[in-house]
Amino acid sequence: MQSLLEAARGVAQNPPPIWFMRQAGRSLPEYRRVRADIPMLEACLRPELAAEITMQPVWRHGVDGAVFFSDIVIPLKLAGVDVEIAPGVGPVFAEPIRTRADVDRLVSREVTDWSAIEDGVRIVAHELTVPVIAFGGAPFTLAAYLVEGRPSRDHLAARTLMHSDLAAWNDLLAWCARLTRGFIQAQIRAGARIAQLFDSWAGSLSLANYEQHVFPHSSAALADLGVPTIHFGVGTAHLLQAMARATDVVGVDERTPLELAARLAPGKPLQGNIDPAMLAAPWEVLAAHVDAVIAAGRAAPAHILNLGHGVPPTTDPEVLTRLVAYVKEHE
Amino acid sequence: MQSLLEAARGVAQNPPPIWFMRQAGRSLPEYRRVRADIPMLEACLRPELAAEITMQPVWRHGVDGAVFFSDIVIPLKLAGVDVEIAPGVGPVFAEPIRTRADVDRLVSREVTDWSAIEDGVRIVAHELTVPVIAFGGAPFTLAAYLVEGRPSRDHLAARTLMHSDLAAWNDLLAWCARLTRGFIQAQIRAGARIAQLFDSWAGSLSLANYEQHVFPHSSAALADLGVPTIHFGVGTAHLLQAMARATDVVGVDERTPLELAARLAPGKPLQGNIDPAMLAAPWEVLAAHVDAVIAAGRAAPAHILNLGHGVPPTTDPEVLTRLVAYVKEHE
Repeated sequence: MQSLLEAARGVAQNPPPIWFMRQAGRSLPEYRRVRADIPMLEACLRPELAAEITMQPVWRHGVDGAVFFSDIVIPLKLAGVDVEIAPGVGPVFAEPIRTRADVDRLVSREVTDWSAIEDGVRIVAHELTVPVIAFGGAPFTLAAYLVEGRPSRDHLAARTLMHSDLAAWNDLLAWCARLTRGFIQAQIRAGARIAQLFDSWAGSLSLANYEQHVFPHSSAALADLGVPTIHFGVGTAHLLQAMARATDVVGVDERTPLELAARLAPGKPLQGNIDPAMLAAPWEVLAAHVDAVIAAGRAAPAHILNLGHGVPPTTDPEVLTRLVAYVKEHE
Repeated sequence: MQSLLEAARGVAQNPPPIWFMRQAGRSLPEYRRVRADIPMLEACLRPELAAEITMQPVWRHGVDGAVFFSDIVIPLKLAGVDVEIAPGVGPVFAEPIRTRADVDRLVSREVTDWSAIEDGVRIVAHELTVPVIAFGGAPFTLAAYLVEGRPSRDHLAARTLMHSDLAAWNDLLAWCARLTRGFIQAQIRAGARIAQLFDSWAGSLSLANYEQHVFPHSSAALADLGVPTIHFGVGTAHLLQAMARATDVVGVDERTPLELAARLAPGKPLQGNIDPAMLAAPWEVLAAHVDAVIAAGRAAPAHILNLGHGVPPTTDPEVLTRLVAYVKEHE
């Protein structure tokens, strides 16, 4: 029944469990209807609304897990950081963190009340039989946003801080790790039975920089949560061996063949890696690709089927529904 | 004297030659002064202006090569494609290429007059003793812009076209290869003595997709140009082995250690890979990093020192000048 949890514990499932990163959100008309004019972060903090958005893709597609609808900056917002999600841009911070003094001011902040998150997750855990997947952003990705003040391609300012003031960097990342861990723990307290940590930007680092200045903090965020953990990044083939040491399940983007990931993370269940660019291709092309991904997943002890990145906002939701049905009939 | 050309031919130089990707442009006040209100693509097509901008960083920093100031979309513009560079955004196309019919209309276009480019390069080749580096964008990166209609993070529409209509894709990439090759050949005719092909977005592809659907076109663009070639991409460690087969010199980003690149591209001279994020770090941190990059470059038969990506617009130009002087005194 809970094939997602079984696979995460390393027990191969046939067919593999399936869910989609960003399954809750912009690709669904029912999401666009309930979000309407409500700003993103406000929607995340209304428990009934966040719960409904979390459940929409489970109702519609029949996926095997319900990733909690939220945003990785929510713990920062709850800590009092002035951040908004600018439509079409991403998180924008009123005061970017650039100096030792900025870091010192920031890291004195804590979150004391996670009830908005707990209340939302509790509704979903009560309503659904599939497991709730707790959601959080990795320390480097949070720090990259905080230092840049907004999304950027190269995260140059963040990486410059890392090289210029390592003590400040480590204080910043330790604080991000503590906050995102608190965010995930709140979801677990309220009923989430598995957790995924997203490190969207770690791929911009060399392995040496990642291992020395980032991995310890991601590892601290993920350690001993009491539920299976999934760790995912984009463009992280060169980091996979290190990332695997911090997690139970290794998320794999569509650039990295699952066979290669299985060699880089031996003994670990894998998650991924249907190419999101295939979702808009003709059905027979997509189906053949999914067959190939399922076959490649057999290189790992167990496999959770997912995309190699989030659902693109332009995705036809009927393709996702058909895809889930296709996998469920898979031999 | 021409240590850049010697290194590109595989003859190790001590100290290694040095230049910077995007050395001509936004980091220089004298550039901002002469560009003023002139739109980017117009500046590229005014020979005297493009020549002056090309020479500015050579005059200022004493680098060992003069990469011709231009934009990768210039050959498209000269072929009559409606494209502009939107400040702070990048290339924006009036009519994105999405269908077989779009591709058919596009590929009937040719460039008949390269004189604006030739005239600009000729001035630089006449004025400077260091070699002019011809500049061009790789077919995939050009196609990604053409299909998306603007910069994007994942190049989803481009990759969907690749999967959906491979014949149209190949026609599009063959055309892009022909145009960018024509652009580079014009620069060589006018005096450029080495050429670099930039594949900014190839890193978003899996090795299998790259090898099957992109490499043949990059290879066609670079073959038999009569001068040494450099091929560079970002986040391309997983493609480096393939990319190396198309070029004399392999450009390496800052995420990929030169020792690893030397193993992936055995026998090839390497170019790179000072971390641009180090340029804003304290001088002693930057100098130690440069020492390490020079030492790592000894793993290759020859090494051209460069950044691992373009000069960030916010770079203090005095740091670049000091860096070149530091390298020139290197033992």
